[in-house]
Amino acid sequence: MILETIQSPHDVAALSLEQLELLAGEIRQEIIRVCAHNGGHLAASLGAVDIAVAAHYVFPSESTRMVWDTGHQAYAHKLMTGRRESFSTIRTRDGLSGFLKRSESPYDHFGAGHACTALSAALGFSASARLQGRDRMNIALLGDGAATGGLVYEAINNTQAHGSKLLVILNDNEMSISPNVGAITRVLTRLTSTRSFLNLEGGTWRALGRIPKIGRLLRTLASRAKQGLKHLIFPGNFFEDFGFKYYGPLDGHDLSLLVRTMRQLREIQHPVILHVLTNKGKGYDLAEENPAKYHGFAPFDPETGSSLGASPSAPSYTEVFGEALLQMGHEDSTVTCISAAMPAGTGTDRFAEAFPERFFDVGIAEPHAVTFAAGLAADGLRPVVAIYSTFLQRAFDMIYHDVALQGLPVIFALDRAGIVGEDGPTHHGVLDLSYLRMIPGMVIMAPSDELELHRMMKTAQHYRKSPLAIRYPRDRGLGIDIPEQLSPLEIGKSRTLREGSKIHLWAIGSMVRPALEAASCLESRGFDPLVVDARFAEPLDRTRLLEEASKADLLVTVEENSSRGGFGEGVLACFREADMDAPSHLLLSLPHGFSPQGTRKEILAEAGLDASGIASSIEKALEKNPRFMETGVGGKS
Amino acid sequence: MILETIQSPHDVAALSLEQLELLAGEIRQEIIRVCAHNGGHLAASLGAVDIAVAAHYVFPSESTRMVWDTGHQAYAHKLMTGRRESFSTIRTRDGLSGFLKRSESPYDHFGAGHACTALSAALGFSASARLQGRDRMNIALLGDGAATGGLVYEAINNTQAHGSKLLVILNDNEMSISPNVGAITRVLTRLTSTRSFLNLEGGTWRALGRIPKIGRLLRTLASRAKQGLKHLIFPGNFFEDFGFKYYGPLDGHDLSLLVRTMRQLREIQHPVILHVLTNKGKGYDLAEENPAKYHGFAPFDPETGSSLGASPSAPSYTEVFGEALLQMGHEDSTVTCISAAMPAGTGTDRFAEAFPERFFDVGIAEPHAVTFAAGLAADGLRPVVAIYSTFLQRAFDMIYHDVALQGLPVIFALDRAGIVGEDGPTHHGVLDLSYLRMIPGMVIMAPSDELELHRMMKTAQHYRKSPLAIRYPRDRGLGIDIPEQLSPLEIGKSRTLREGSKIHLWAIGSMVRPALEAASCLESRGFDPLVVDARFAEPLDRTRLLEEASKADLLVTVEENSSRGGFGEGVLACFREADMDAPSHLLLSLPHGFSPQGTRKEILAEAGLDASGIASSIEKALEKNPRFMETGVGGKS
Repeated sequence: MILETIQSPHDVAALSLEQLELLAGEIRQEIIRVCAHNGGHLAASLGAVDIAVAAHYVFPSESTRMVWDTGHQAYAHKLMTGRRESFSTIRTRDGLSGFLKRSESPYDHFGAGHACTALSAALGFSASARLQGRDRMNIALLGDGAATGGLVYEAINNTQAHGSKLLVILNDNEMSISPNVGAITRVLTRLTSTRSFLNLEGGTWRALGRIPKIGRLLRTLASRAKQGLKHLIFPGNFFEDFGFKYYGPLDGHDLSLLVRTMRQLREIQHPVILHVLTNKGKGYDLAEENPAKYHGFAPFDPETGSSLGASPSAPSYTEVFGEALLQMGHEDSTVTCISAAMPAGTGTDRFAEAFPERFFDVGIAEPHAVTFAAGLAADGLRPVVAIYSTFLQRAFDMIYHDVALQGLPVIFALDRAGIVGEDGPTHHGVLDLSYLRMIPGMVIMAPSDELELHRMMKTAQHYRKSPLAIRYPRDRGLGIDIPEQLSPLEIGKSRTLREGSKIHLWAIGSMVRPALEAASCLESRGFDPLVVDARFAEPLDRTRLLEEASKADLLVTVEENSSRGGFGEGVLACFREADMDAPSHLLLSLPHGFSPQGTRKEILAEAGLDASGIASSIEKALEKNPRFMETGVGGKS
Repeated sequence: MILETIQSPHDVAALSLEQLELLAGEIRQEIIRVCAHNGGHLAASLGAVDIAVAAHYVFPSESTRMVWDTGHQAYAHKLMTGRRESFSTIRTRDGLSGFLKRSESPYDHFGAGHACTALSAALGFSASARLQGRDRMNIALLGDGAATGGLVYEAINNTQAHGSKLLVILNDNEMSISPNVGAITRVLTRLTSTRSFLNLEGGTWRALGRIPKIGRLLRTLASRAKQGLKHLIFPGNFFEDFGFKYYGPLDGHDLSLLVRTMRQLREIQHPVILHVLTNKGKGYDLAEENPAKYHGFAPFDPETGSSLGASPSAPSYTEVFGEALLQMGHEDSTVTCISAAMPAGTGTDRFAEAFPERFFDVGIAEPHAVTFAAGLAADGLRPVVAIYSTFLQRAFDMIYHDVALQGLPVIFALDRAGIVGEDGPTHHGVLDLSYLRMIPGMVIMAPSDELELHRMMKTAQHYRKSPLAIRYPRDRGLGIDIPEQLSPLEIGKSRTLREGSKIHLWAIGSMVRPALEAASCLESRGFDPLVVDARFAEPLDRTRLLEEASKADLLVTVEENSSRGGFGEGVLACFREADMDAPSHLLLSLPHGFSPQGTRKEILAEAGLDASGIASSIEKALEKNPRFMETGVGGKS
């Protein structure tokens, strides 16, 4: 095994080309082996193996900064940078991250879980190298899906002015997570169409334009292949407009070609784009055939189920949302849906299939998704923007300035709210209650089960006064039957799930079920807590909080969100606004900080957000506070 | 006067071309007259007069949706849509908005103060019209500065797929607020270079490509003007790559040409870009000569001064920041600065002049500004990102995901934090304490005077553990002398400005001075309040809050930020986290909601955030609460 001898990129650089080919194969096998066990981003990583191997072979690590756009294509990079032995821990608690991470390795120069950041960051490295007089190659490795994001365009627009030595490797697999959308795809495809023409040269392809002789040759060939002329004279017009030299496209699985080309590009002092064609899932037939399925997947865990309180046979919240959206689409022809490159991930694919003309996949372009939706709403339609909680952060200003300031009734569906599990801190959606709560007029709901999600969708459908958001976890429901007829909820009203007294538990969304279970625990110890499903983080059920909860001996709020500015702080502020003394208040939430990766179950348990954690936090609060002993909150006294 | 006869766009449509020319002139005079009095975006609006007149002349308002990118170029539009009589109230309290506003006029189809949103919104209108089977022209009017923003690119990328009838008018004045940056400028300039060539035809220019005869003619002409060939055959390659038909460039002050061209484009069913060249400030010599100065300006108000507590002769916070940044640049060669198209507005122009190689103007591209800064910081530099509070909202995710998650020591300088005044709700920076406070590791400071701003810059310079933000208002300092030697502040430590007891006033940033004045007021009524300058919104001075302030009879927090999730709620949460009863707490802040336009002084007074408002809120709190009377908080007892 060659892979076993690779401790660092230096060992890669010492190999022969033949050994390099073997290494790439071994890396693929290792990625497949580990992903089968841990889950992970199999297809993207397999597609980029040869690029990673060639890049580490050609570019000496001391004088190279390599920025991977969303590190999930960089498993090969991990295997070549001293993490082979720990690779099997990837995406587990305390194991390797599924993305790059500066704290994990000195070879991870910049980390990212969100797409489109690599070119901006690499441009920073490039500008810095120029300022500090360092001769260094700065590389950004992009997936083609990233080309749909405005951030990449902003970086492209600044590259010539601010960068010097910069190599953008565009890993073009003609799909990102779902098939790419938008005109940029056609731009790339047009470039790609020259590929067969380049093959005429039988592998003697060299960086176009560097060597005049080749330029002439191409022109001669071009006169025989009229169609190719335009492309060859202006091979990458879009990129060249913005000051890049364009090279490509070339076969991203031809290691020898990759190595030769990268060597030629090594000394170039200006921004270069190298367009490389790859197959997502390369080397694993199943993944090549269905790369969307193998984009990111979780292994089946028969022992624990996917997470807390969920029934393994119940539908996921994503599926339930997809079903409710479909229904909404049938009932109201003004309902439209916008996805940012995630129709399958967000469950909007069924709506897309049923109402293709009302479905808009805008690419990895969350800001545009929201402002476009604002335009639709301003013209009387009912747009539903379905974006993961963590990615919607990118459209914070558009939600505020384009939607809320104009009072437009856009519906936001935030999947993956809370702890997402193995993808870790880049993907946890732990801020949405906070960043949405500060937006005036925003109604914020969180369902405690799948029936509630249906009800909330119905509520959203009938509410037109202002924007409205529904956030739900990466989890399964409880297996509840959904009645045919559902009425909208009253905005801002909570519901009681368990009668009780003295201890008032107010939980929201995913935390309602564990709170109920915690109440059962506490009951067995002689307490009799009231459990309320808040349903709304905004507007809060103020009347009830002020009239009833204020009299509680202990008010407990539970949310799967950061402590900062979320549901619990909202409750606290509610008493202050009313100029009332808050009752003793135990605020249970995710910590302020970056929660680690691990299974949802693990991370929630660590944060004390499972039933036993909630129960024990409450017990501690009761013990610590002499008042409760005096007033005899529970049955223990 | 023709303008006096214009009640709606219908009246415009009824004019002759000659009358139209007169109307444009009258509109210019009216804009100059009112702006001289009220201040405003003079240059941009003057430049776009002819475009607005022609568009309303050609496109019937019933079947047109017109979306202006940042409405500040749309004063002419206001004058033609029933707002002539109220126009002199523009940018005053209860007067017309300086931007478009859906609630102000049925002709304002979409409002915006932040740039780059128009195309996304117009695409929404276009998609909606197609879905609803309406034959309608959807127009987005862009400034060329907008082309540097990723949001516009995202919209361009989706136009062909999601839009149908869509006309983008690119108002190219070769500068947005400051001269444009980035490669897109060159792309536009290259297109522009055909302008003189088109003049050869002496005004007989017609939509290129529509009429084959013209196409042939151009080719013939092209053979005589070799240089023109490429441009004419590929006139707008960048836009055509993305599915637009490109027409232009044409003289944006030739009304007759504009009208003829727009008429030709009226029936086209696909996305079109019309590239129009204008002079910013057209019709007002001073503004044409110095458009940056006349971009947005305030009239001099000798009576009141610009705002609360400020000395009219003292430097603005913007200037003080610029000076401190310059000093930082001299002392530390790793200091770099990033501006998003606002070097003058943010006071970074002096740094730019002194250290051009360390200054990066990235265009209207806040997300890139932040991720690029993260790249610089990851390579050991000290980037200072200087962006207005309201615009930094666009980079919320980049601050979280690219900077904070990686613990990179980027310095954020947020100018225009709080109430900006006449620009109103699109521009008020009232959320930054809230959205920054939820970002783990972020240090947040706010200076109470210009000496404090210098100290905080010094603090930032020496602090490298995590990102750090300084927010300051659109205001002037107090005229304090700045000592040569300054030491960094201790992170998270407040300072006492007035000794006192029982009433503890904790103010931050711009509210410290009014709080002190309020204390003097209260003193004259027999109270003796303590006044603390919190200095840090994060980390809070927890020890002191818990040890001292917890014993206060009344704790008052004062901040120029939304109540939601800001400084006051942070203080509240601080007691809860320590499991301590909070003292009676009066939280003074801007309301949760959109604050209106008006002078800073007016709006702050309405929010109760001037000295007398603060004093009277405190008095009311004391009166209302019998406890204070019993314990004898003040001297009144």
